[in-house]
Amino acid sequence: MKKQNVAIVGATGVVGRTFIQILEERDFPIAGLRLLASQKSVGQKIQFKQQEFAVELLEPQSFKEIDFALFSAGAGVSREFCPIAAEAGATVIDNSSAFRMDENAPLVVPEVNPHALNRQQRIIANPNCSTIQMVVAAKPLHDAGTIKRIVVSTYQAVSGKGKDAVEELKTQSSAVLQNQKISTDVFPHQIAFNALPHIDKFHADGNTLEEIKMVNETRKIMELPNLPVSATCVRVPVFTGHSISLNLQFEKPLEVEKARQILSEAPGVVLMDHPQDEVYPTPAFAAGRDGVFVGRIRRDDSVEHGLNLWVVSDNLRKGAALNAIQIAEELIKE
Amino acid sequence: MKKQNVAIVGATGVVGRTFIQILEERDFPIAGLRLLASQKSVGQKIQFKQQEFAVELLEPQSFKEIDFALFSAGAGVSREFCPIAAEAGATVIDNSSAFRMDENAPLVVPEVNPHALNRQQRIIANPNCSTIQMVVAAKPLHDAGTIKRIVVSTYQAVSGKGKDAVEELKTQSSAVLQNQKISTDVFPHQIAFNALPHIDKFHADGNTLEEIKMVNETRKIMELPNLPVSATCVRVPVFTGHSISLNLQFEKPLEVEKARQILSEAPGVVLMDHPQDEVYPTPAFAAGRDGVFVGRIRRDDSVEHGLNLWVVSDNLRKGAALNAIQIAEELIKE
Repeated sequence: MKKQNVAIVGATGVVGRTFIQILEERDFPIAGLRLLASQKSVGQKIQFKQQEFAVELLEPQSFKEIDFALFSAGAGVSREFCPIAAEAGATVIDNSSAFRMDENAPLVVPEVNPHALNRQQRIIANPNCSTIQMVVAAKPLHDAGTIKRIVVSTYQAVSGKGKDAVEELKTQSSAVLQNQKISTDVFPHQIAFNALPHIDKFHADGNTLEEIKMVNETRKIMELPNLPVSATCVRVPVFTGHSISLNLQFEKPLEVEKARQILSEAPGVVLMDHPQDEVYPTPAFAAGRDGVFVGRIRRDDSVEHGLNLWVVSDNLRKGAALNAIQIAEELIKE
Repeated sequence: MKKQNVAIVGATGVVGRTFIQILEERDFPIAGLRLLASQKSVGQKIQFKQQEFAVELLEPQSFKEIDFALFSAGAGVSREFCPIAAEAGATVIDNSSAFRMDENAPLVVPEVNPHALNRQQRIIANPNCSTIQMVVAAKPLHDAGTIKRIVVSTYQAVSGKGKDAVEELKTQSSAVLQNQKISTDVFPHQIAFNALPHIDKFHADGNTLEEIKMVNETRKIMELPNLPVSATCVRVPVFTGHSISLNLQFEKPLEVEKARQILSEAPGVVLMDHPQDEVYPTPAFAAGRDGVFVGRIRRDDSVEHGLNLWVVSDNLRKGAALNAIQIAEELIKE
């Protein structure tokens, strides 16, 4: 397989470091690796396969001879530098929200819509973390029963908001346990031992942008532009691993046993559904693993053809870095 | 107002202590106070209004001349001792699940169904914590728009499971922060920095008893025996304060502004709904307060006449001790 020159933009962030880890774990065919970040991280050393790489400054010239540019440095950086990288000849896979709803950019979860990819595209968008795990679980069930409506509530980990958020949860938790005063910088309110129904900014209609992303991105990935989706996104004091409580209403009957069988064979899904033995997914279990873990599959008797599911996945892996690298793998496979 | 002899069963537990605190705060007309518990707590001293009370052993003889017996020592103790206390002439208000679905016992939230109470009843059941806060918010909206279906996901605090659970969250959190091994005794899996979709036992149909309680108790309190309710109950690493993500579908149109106005005047409800200013309820805010706090009221466009709400309340207060004392107040008012 032809080896690739890979650039990682935002290399020192939580997703950036996960990119590097997963490229190594999966033995991605790398010719050269360029780690890019803003001025304050320049010179930091990061290990990749026994070799040390120095972090370089992200500049317009950074993408010369790069085959794949993996971006995770926020929507602002992506809006500025993705087109530059694409212009320089790289295939850009962008983890920010900048291009997700751009009709020229495919929004791809390889288990769900690999057909949306082709080698001509210069910028490919990686979906929102919670959306990825939801569609990986929902799509195979949709194929069997046709989803009529989704009601989802999330339990999202702080690492989705970056390094400083992880640090704030640690610092605040220590302070609370020692009856000390906490300080609040990254989150609008205390996050330690709390739950905040507030991820990303509020839109005028009362939804957060995170909730709007879950609706719009799900529709685009599943190619169901009118799919009814109601999302409530909540930050919980978990370091890594997003959980979602997923309520699905189908057009056609879909028994619990059938749903289990479908999910046990679905790509990317790991079934963990023996509640009597206390087997169901949790974020502490999912963190550091690659699967979309599904459990608590139950009939919802409050509606015709309803199912409830509990879906957990590592937001930095399948929810971000892993999905992006799977997109790259899909492209070099062709 | 005639002063009452009050017995508290389970006086050293988290709800028991909250009973004592709230009786004092509200200046409940107390003639005598008897604190009852199992052998291991006998002799413990608890302060009430500048006076020290010694915890006594719970025995069949404990209820002589007691007017109100407030129980919070688990369903087993309630099944054994509530009938004894009632037989001795006390009005029993039971916080356990033992009598909630008993057709002879009213299940009461004073803001919702005070008419279910009368002075002849000997055993009155206090509903499940999550159910109480849900019906306090849902009932006034039901009166305006007629609820057709409820889909609810909870974010429940550990204090709902008692003192040992609170201790386990503290101990595990410290251990995780210091990279030490954790031990798991009270919860089936790690609760620190995690989320467990498992509260109470699993029923054969895949629901937990907590989820079944939310369905059945809501129907009984709201006197809607066929109301479609789907519940997913999740334990989160929060000490006190349950949150629920509440999706309501109505028969009739109910605009967000109308819902806000109704809830701003509803008994027991405190509206906290200015998301643009980061005003919405959180458990850390609700803990120690009496209200059922409602925010994030939004239209749900995925269904006709849909609304989403975020409802938070102190599970030891309105979810347990406060509601029980409000029932007693309602009875002595008559």
